[in-house]
Amino acid sequence: MLKVPAHQVAGHQAIDGRLGPLVDDSGRFYKPLQSDERGANEVAFYTSFSSNKKIPDHIRRFFPVFHGTQLVQASDGSGMCPHLVLQDLVSSHINPSIMDIKIGPRTWPPRASEDYIAKCLKKDRESTSTELGFRISGFQIYRSKESGYWKPDKGYIRSFSAEDVRVILRKFVSSNASADSDSDPDCAFASTVYGGSNGILAQLLELKAWFEDQTIFHFYTCSVLMIFEKELALKGRSSGAEVKLVDFAHVVEGRGVIDHNFLGGLCSFIKFVSEILTGPVESPKSCLQDSERN
Amino acid sequence: MLKVPAHQVAGHQAIDGRLGPLVDDSGRFYKPLQSDERGANEVAFYTSFSSNKKIPDHIRRFFPVFHGTQLVQASDGSGMCPHLVLQDLVSSHINPSIMDIKIGPRTWPPRASEDYIAKCLKKDRESTSTELGFRISGFQIYRSKESGYWKPDKGYIRSFSAEDVRVILRKFVSSNASADSDSDPDCAFASTVYGGSNGILAQLLELKAWFEDQTIFHFYTCSVLMIFEKELALKGRSSGAEVKLVDFAHVVEGRGVIDHNFLGGLCSFIKFVSEILTGPVESPKSCLQDSERN
Repeated sequence: MLKVPAHQVAGHQAIDGRLGPLVDDSGRFYKPLQSDERGANEVAFYTSFSSNKKIPDHIRRFFPVFHGTQLVQASDGSGMCPHLVLQDLVSSHINPSIMDIKIGPRTWPPRASEDYIAKCLKKDRESTSTELGFRISGFQIYRSKESGYWKPDKGYIRSFSAEDVRVILRKFVSSNASADSDSDPDCAFASTVYGGSNGILAQLLELKAWFEDQTIFHFYTCSVLMIFEKELALKGRSSGAEVKLVDFAHVVEGRGVIDHNFLGGLCSFIKFVSEILTGPVESPKSCLQDSERN
Repeated sequence: MLKVPAHQVAGHQAIDGRLGPLVDDSGRFYKPLQSDERGANEVAFYTSFSSNKKIPDHIRRFFPVFHGTQLVQASDGSGMCPHLVLQDLVSSHINPSIMDIKIGPRTWPPRASEDYIAKCLKKDRESTSTELGFRISGFQIYRSKESGYWKPDKGYIRSFSAEDVRVILRKFVSSNASADSDSDPDCAFASTVYGGSNGILAQLLELKAWFEDQTIFHFYTCSVLMIFEKELALKGRSSGAEVKLVDFAHVVEGRGVIDHNFLGGLCSFIKFVSEILTGPVESPKSCLQDSERN
């Protein structure tokens, strides 16, 4: 039995009879193949990536496991359609906080059509992509059994400024996260989620080291997902914090050149995250110090 | 007495009565202030950079020393004009080999005008900037007393493909460098110029570490200069290899964000240089091995 995923924060969603991904009870995620070249391109990427022996295991774990393609009943009632069968990244989670960050200042590959470039360039400039090298595409933050998730709509997120991004990345690891712009995020979980030897920052730095060297793929419009469990973070120590990469419809061959576009954006994102842990030099108050003091 | 620089490889040149930089005998370089905002912007950068206490000394050495501005007789006969007074980076050199590499896939700042963006974007896409994250703007390679320098014109360099860039970076450190596309560059000086604890690669990695952290400036259309003396390289050990940064007419404030555009391009350039030292995995023949074998 396939059903609509409970924890999707960006991309097309299978609600109200529309086409979108589905999940089953065994931990698989069914993503409908887009009918244009994007679908074929994403299958080609997963196929190539899965069989590529140059991908080290500690990097492979950042990618969803690929189980091939399968014809399944599409969520929009259009009948049996080909779907990518992938690992459901949140199937083992209870109340995951999730953020989807599209990495890279430029979302168009060099050999794209003029129309496509113009469309992407406009979006990149209107969002924070050009300026920051990344943009937040969606998120949900678990608050409590009573108040559930804070999961704002696309319009709210699309209008984010650089400063909004900075605040949201703090709210993501705060016990008092809300849309209220006056509330000062306490960053209570910063050290357990972003910090530590298995935390988000450590995982991002592993990815970075690979991107400084790998020339196999260029990951246009690919996202970093950050996932953690607030309940675990509250208990201290580990928060099950995970970094994953998703969305490979626009991956192209690297042709012997590193993906400087993804790498630049990733380094910028890393700086944002690390500043939450150490506190910027300008500000006397650091998140890490706050959480330690409480 | 001011004269035309002997070793300029890119930018406006003071020949045939045109406006360009001049040098004196005491090691100073006089760069005419461009009359539009670029001139004012470059003065503002040097002034701000010179007095900024957050710039570490090991980074400051990559920049030309700034001696203020001065009215001097312009090279185009237009009378006394304001010039930036800078350190002449090659005054102590005898027969320098020099390459000017414009770093960054994007040469326009986010807040530029639409016309300026369109103009830059076209140049970035037509050159290797978009694809590689950098482009070669000019170079001269010293060959010998008899044959002097190989210094091709702008048109030749502007048409470089990714593969041409790869070859030219090998020719730059070869004893048999020439325009002849059939000759296989021997990379005889790769290990002394690019390699070693004081070589180009080590210096680029120092710069990279700073760019991963600094959020003070964004260096649009800024160039990395590589300079070395073939005569010194022939003697082995040190080649006086130096990395310098030049051209700051389009520097803007960093506003708390790293310069992911420059950093991405720099990492790509670093990968090109390091592959000459180690040899790509695909190729059984490495430059370093060649030079060691001879």
